[in-house]
Amino acid sequence: MVYELYYWPSIQGRGEFVRLALEEAGAKYVDVARGDKGGRDSVSRVLDGATKTPPFAPPVLKAGIIVVSHTANILQFLGPRLNLAPKSEAGRLWTHGLQLTMTDFVKEVHDTHHPIATSLYYEDQKKEALHYTGEFLKSRAPKYLRYFEDVLQRNGGKHLVGRSLTYPDLSLFQIVTGLRYAFPKAMKGLEKDIPLSVALRNAVEKRPRIAAYLASPRRIDFNEYGIFRHYPELDR
Amino acid sequence: MVYELYYWPSIQGRGEFVRLALEEAGAKYVDVARGDKGGRDSVSRVLDGATKTPPFAPPVLKAGIIVVSHTANILQFLGPRLNLAPKSEAGRLWTHGLQLTMTDFVKEVHDTHHPIATSLYYEDQKKEALHYTGEFLKSRAPKYLRYFEDVLQRNGGKHLVGRSLTYPDLSLFQIVTGLRYAFPKAMKGLEKDIPLSVALRNAVEKRPRIAAYLASPRRIDFNEYGIFRHYPELDR
Repeated sequence: MVYELYYWPSIQGRGEFVRLALEEAGAKYVDVARGDKGGRDSVSRVLDGATKTPPFAPPVLKAGIIVVSHTANILQFLGPRLNLAPKSEAGRLWTHGLQLTMTDFVKEVHDTHHPIATSLYYEDQKKEALHYTGEFLKSRAPKYLRYFEDVLQRNGGKHLVGRSLTYPDLSLFQIVTGLRYAFPKAMKGLEKDIPLSVALRNAVEKRPRIAAYLASPRRIDFNEYGIFRHYPELDR
Repeated sequence: MVYELYYWPSIQGRGEFVRLALEEAGAKYVDVARGDKGGRDSVSRVLDGATKTPPFAPPVLKAGIIVVSHTANILQFLGPRLNLAPKSEAGRLWTHGLQLTMTDFVKEVHDTHHPIATSLYYEDQKKEALHYTGEFLKSRAPKYLRYFEDVLQRNGGKHLVGRSLTYPDLSLFQIVTGLRYAFPKAMKGLEKDIPLSVALRNAVEKRPRIAAYLASPRRIDFNEYGIFRHYPELDR
């Protein structure tokens, strides 16, 4: 099976959570929009195709005749196939629930720079972004981060689910890494309360396939077009 | 099997999407926080319990030893059990993806009255709410509503998935009904573009079990504490 990932070619964005799972598993996949015949048009074609099941937005994963959209949905589909999810139904539902909490967190991260509308420039909602981000760094980010820290602690400290790596571990790596990029000052304080999450982040970074991926041109750098953006004025 | 639903007792909120599925199926369930021994404390206890798998937020569904959180996750769990989801894996993934798009839509509806922070009163973010809602009614609500209308049309017009009722049909009923409550003026215009969705909404409303539910005290009225709130100044 060669998986086809359809996602914007110039950002990590939500697609990165899928890329990390595919890379960790050593899965064969094509990041279609980054290939020779890809580009943004290939993503648009997936959304507008003549199908009874048009996705609303990328990322979209194709696996043979199966088409899956929404990051967390893609990960729950890939999880068992890539050996990155527990086997029991209860375990899979719990794992997916964790990922959906991360989905909500990531949306709130996005809204730090776009609290009013995605159709407006950051500069046109900067005042509101300052207000939103102040509340985000004061209450929402700590609430989410302490929640995942608590889950880690209840589960023995090393992994969010079970006794080995699952896809939410990879996603927590991405979230902590992204928050460091976006809010380096604020994260210095916040990280004091989440030592297990930081240790998991560091352990994921050193896994051979993840380390190779991060050092490769396949890993797109953080930039100010994605979810995690570094605007110094927001980082207080 | 008697399902236990844990959700805030005084609002429809996100829990309502689960209630509608349980009611349509005639499933045995307890809306725990609305029972004699319930109340908000029963919800808090589920979130803070001595478990390895603490949910982040309600709604939470218990089914024997299985505990599921997040509305869309609960619905994908219940769907096959209540005969409200297709049988194939591809079909279930598509159905869940549709529901996750509704989850995103519902979050944006919520943010019309709380664009800056859930921890602040509406009155303290009213100016931003006016700005946010203007963009929401101009571009986001039409985009989502036309998407579901398009899915209905591609699928023959009567149902979002397959040839019979599935849980996203019930959720679309709730969304259209909620938007009518929150934005009656704006919806008069928006509904002109979504005749199939309106017809589906009306058909769901007349289904015997749903009609009985809506007429019962189990259906909580819309109010200004839930997702869909009617603030006349936002409805332009």
